Amino acid sequence: MQFLPNRGVTAPCGFQVGASRAGIKTQGLDVALLVADVGSTSAAVFTTSQVKAAPVLVSARHLTNSQPRAVVVNAGNANCCTGEAGMRNARAMCELAARKLGLDAQEVLVCSTGIIGHALPLDKIESALQTMTLDASDEEAARAFMTTDLVPKFVAASAQIGGGTVTVGGQAKGVGMIGPNMAPLALHATMLAFLTTDARIEAARLQRLLELAVARSFNSVTVDGDMSTNDTAILLASGASNIEISNDNEAQFLELLQAVCIELSKKIARDGEGATRLIQIEVAGAKSNDDARTIALSIANSPLVKTAIFGRDPNWGRIAMAAGKAGVRFDASKLSFSLGALEMFRDGEPVPFDQKTAELQLQNEEVFIRLQLGEGSANWTAWTCDFSYEYVKINAEYHT
Amino acid sequence: MQFLPNRGVTAPCGFQVGASRAGIKTQGLDVALLVADVGSTSAAVFTTSQVKAAPVLVSARHLTNSQPRAVVVNAGNANCCTGEAGMRNARAMCELAARKLGLDAQEVLVCSTGIIGHALPLDKIESALQTMTLDASDEEAARAFMTTDLVPKFVAASAQIGGGTVTVGGQAKGVGMIGPNMAPLALHATMLAFLTTDARIEAARLQRLLELAVARSFNSVTVDGDMSTNDTAILLASGASNIEISNDNEAQFLELLQAVCIELSKKIARDGEGATRLIQIEVAGAKSNDDARTIALSIANSPLVKTAIFGRDPNWGRIAMAAGKAGVRFDASKLSFSLGALEMFRDGEPVPFDQKTAELQLQNEEVFIRLQLGEGSANWTAWTCDFSYEYVKINAEYHT
Repeated sequence: MQFLPNRGVTAPCGFQVGASRAGIKTQGLDVALLVADVGSTSAAVFTTSQVKAAPVLVSARHLTNSQPRAVVVNAGNANCCTGEAGMRNARAMCELAARKLGLDAQEVLVCSTGIIGHALPLDKIESALQTMTLDASDEEAARAFMTTDLVPKFVAASAQIGGGTVTVGGQAKGVGMIGPNMAPLALHATMLAFLTTDARIEAARLQRLLELAVARSFNSVTVDGDMSTNDTAILLASGASNIEISNDNEAQFLELLQAVCIELSKKIARDGEGATRLIQIEVAGAKSNDDARTIALSIANSPLVKTAIFGRDPNWGRIAMAAGKAGVRFDASKLSFSLGALEMFRDGEPVPFDQKTAELQLQNEEVFIRLQLGEGSANWTAWTCDFSYEYVKINAEYHT
Repeated sequence: MQFLPNRGVTAPCGFQVGASRAGIKTQGLDVALLVADVGSTSAAVFTTSQVKAAPVLVSARHLTNSQPRAVVVNAGNANCCTGEAGMRNARAMCELAARKLGLDAQEVLVCSTGIIGHALPLDKIESALQTMTLDASDEEAARAFMTTDLVPKFVAASAQIGGGTVTVGGQAKGVGMIGPNMAPLALHATMLAFLTTDARIEAARLQRLLELAVARSFNSVTVDGDMSTNDTAILLASGASNIEISNDNEAQFLELLQAVCIELSKKIARDGEGATRLIQIEVAGAKSNDDARTIALSIANSPLVKTAIFGRDPNWGRIAMAAGKAGVRFDASKLSFSLGALEMFRDGEPVPFDQKTAELQLQNEEVFIRLQLGEGSANWTAWTCDFSYEYVKINAEYHT
């Protein structure tokens, strides 16, 4: 497997993308359109929030009714908590995109991200789509759905599968209101991810593989634990490589897809609002994957762990606290953990360490926390960022 | 019912309290001792964390084996993640207190709060206990177990029950690592609360009433959602009023006890690390109490809701987001909520409001968020504080 530098959603064959400025955000590109060739298949997962934005409800319906092959997205307005008018606007966005592309509206998925509770300026989106050309770069496409993101996040990778080269591309946005927990048809996130591949995959298999990849990537990244009303991850397969994914080679394809999703997830955490550190938390020796994931995310969401790392303080007691509060049963006398290369706690007892060496573990841009529960063989990895003054500033000053 | 100004744990008859400086904290009182008259009964609840501090494990054992009537506490060191040595030290603290009071060690409960993972300086505690006199004021007692608290938190109230006056007193500490979820014998919190009463109550009833009162008070307050390894709430009943609590009057006693616990809980949130606002969240119309509590705490723990209130921004979309992510099923089209006196969302549709009037709702020191789910008749109230630069400062600079 090999990453393709500076490539994103159009790295696989069979995709076109456009990006325009509609004027919803105060500056920059804010509308994009992604379309796959005829004959492509699609899959998606959505937020499990009980308050789902209109575009999530509409996209989930379209995915049930047809095999969508286009995605239209705007940034700057989430079209959420907007009532019946919001539903009409989300459907209208699909219709506008469909008309432009010569598709049925049901073949278009729609995503929105930005402020909640404000009416969507449909006229601006209509104008932007009218003049849009489908020749944007992968970077422009990734920029066009950014909100408080500082950098565009896009990745592509190829692997030899089934006697040929299969490529997966992707772009993601979202650096706040990030604690996704997406599931099929569960309709709504402000984590948005668009994934593409030139493999040929029938829809049911595509959906299953997307869910597996999302569980160990986007659903395992958090900035503030605040699951959004709009989270959506979409995977389109163009089939342009003529390589069919079957039982024989789906493990290889999943590995490739997951690598792209994990890379995008790490980019989300690294660009998390106010972040100065990317933190990777690995929990091993759990009774079940669920147990391992719950503990990893409990540590990843702990304000006390995240502020300690921002303060460059190896305050390991907070790691023990955050593991303990997760609601998962384990025997604390078998718990061990390390910060970076330094073991700090072994089988329920503190391990003496040199304070200066411990502080060094927090000097790198990437911080590693590794736990061993000693209860079983399941493991999980989660990603987060530290918690800084800047996070408070961004979110206290992001006024409605 | 009537609150007794400036009174705390010795407001009910039959209690003595001492407070000293052992020198564990950098300054101020840091060891206290509370003792009830012969014949008293006791009850306690402890953190449900899987990583429980030594004093929690020892106290839970003593409560099972005997009917404790004294509590010894230190601040500045949590005696948590301290392995076997920590267990020996927690037992030794009980023995030292028991020797001073002429009790059996099993009759003493022990609490510790402060840094995790450092050896407890038992010699300092021993010296402090030796010279301690049991004539401290309620305020001194409340000061002696403070850590990052800015103000001592103590309350007392009386009511006419069973033909006489029953008094309940209490003190609480903790302004960070606050997201208690305490249960009987579940052994370990850094929310500490000592409650006293002069009512006569048999131990099983006392335990049941304490659990009911704690559910709607201490277990419904959060600062950062980080449940501690040491949370403990203890209730001692001296019987000195000669008024027996029975089936006939226990509802009245519970009301009195709960009023004291709620008042202490609000003081915790108001003094939360970096807090500038006390936030009260009321969820009504839920299918069950559990549902209402889960949604109330999801809003109370949302960094985006808490930073918006710090920024004095009526960004109500974040309230909808936080309710939606709670993991409780409800129909968003029936959801209504208000900020202070202003309705913002009714039956799934935004209600137009004047921005200036909305901002006014955030000018008071106490902010009210009220939700109506329209699903049933259960309700719950939770308390929290806003999320400020100062929270980050306190926790990034609180070095080990």
